[in-house]
Amino acid sequence: MKNAIFVMLEDYADWEYGYLASQLNKSVTWNVKTCSTTKLVASIGGFETRVNYLIDELAEPCDLLVLIGGNSWKIKNEPLKKFIATHLAANKPTAAICGAVDYLAENGLLLHYKHTGNAQYLWHDFKEYTNQTEFIPVQAVHDRNLVTANGTAALEFTNLVLKMIHFLPNSEVDKATDLYKLGFYKYCDKYGNPFA
Amino acid sequence: MKNAIFVMLEDYADWEYGYLASQLNKSVTWNVKTCSTTKLVASIGGFETRVNYLIDELAEPCDLLVLIGGNSWKIKNEPLKKFIATHLAANKPTAAICGAVDYLAENGLLLHYKHTGNAQYLWHDFKEYTNQTEFIPVQAVHDRNLVTANGTAALEFTNLVLKMIHFLPNSEVDKATDLYKLGFYKYCDKYGNPFA
Repeated sequence: MKNAIFVMLEDYADWEYGYLASQLNKSVTWNVKTCSTTKLVASIGGFETRVNYLIDELAEPCDLLVLIGGNSWKIKNEPLKKFIATHLAANKPTAAICGAVDYLAENGLLLHYKHTGNAQYLWHDFKEYTNQTEFIPVQAVHDRNLVTANGTAALEFTNLVLKMIHFLPNSEVDKATDLYKLGFYKYCDKYGNPFA
Repeated sequence: MKNAIFVMLEDYADWEYGYLASQLNKSVTWNVKTCSTTKLVASIGGFETRVNYLIDELAEPCDLLVLIGGNSWKIKNEPLKKFIATHLAANKPTAAICGAVDYLAENGLLLHYKHTGNAQYLWHDFKEYTNQTEFIPVQAVHDRNLVTANGTAALEFTNLVLKMIHFLPNSEVDKATDLYKLGFYKYCDKYGNPFA
């Protein structure tokens, strides 16, 4: 069984993680676990999540680390920073969306990666963000073991993360996310009715 | 302050509630609270939610009742059924998506409402579902105080619910959901850059 760890902080973005977490956790090969700096974390939408792990309980890199966006990624927390940096440096699959990409930029963790994010102008004060020319203004970017996305790109993010981890053949990943991108009726027009 | 109650059961669908809950809860006029039959409820994606209320703690109708889809809506629970039926009968805004619409169909709660859902053939054994001709095969349907949607229609659901409760002028609701439907870059092409 492979493990995906989803990290979220207070005021995390409800709409960014759901497609990805559900695709992974309902499969027979992946398990989703949650992690934060406190045991209870409230989302922007007002959902209170009880996480499986605190950051300093995470000893080893997991098979996929997902950093959900939200309003608290200005955080200064050494165990968290070390965990993310170690995971990236070990070439383990890592995914960050929205505010979590701001965090990577601020902490020098986007270096040598092509990437995107909410908006590059938000990062102009970040001394450790030095590879401005590698920012690509698209919904989501995959470069080696890192996927980044803006906060309006939950499905594009899901698509590229599932491809990065070879969750299914790429064409099947496209179908899986098209079901939600197109909606049921347009999906049926394109692929046929999956329930017929 | 207006209150929205989101009801979810075990194995609830992570991707269905996030756009709506976050739009409501980050506004100054709405508060989101969660409710279930147990204090801890796990989502399909593996997120464990600690809810604010148990079903039998809910005495009065709220300003908006949202029933999130998932895999446990075959549930037999009298307080839950009574709460939903009373809310609908009082003409209070109600919204159901995916498996939660199956529940309304099975319990005779779609009667006299135009509606949609995941697929009508799933309901052919439901004796209390008698208004088959009022099923509309589209992503989401609004009829008076009820919005219904299939499980691939999180954004269409959000759009119609926000319009039903007059959250913003309809054109502003369309902009709010188009940001996620189109994604940031196509949104900017259509409406201009919101951050410029």
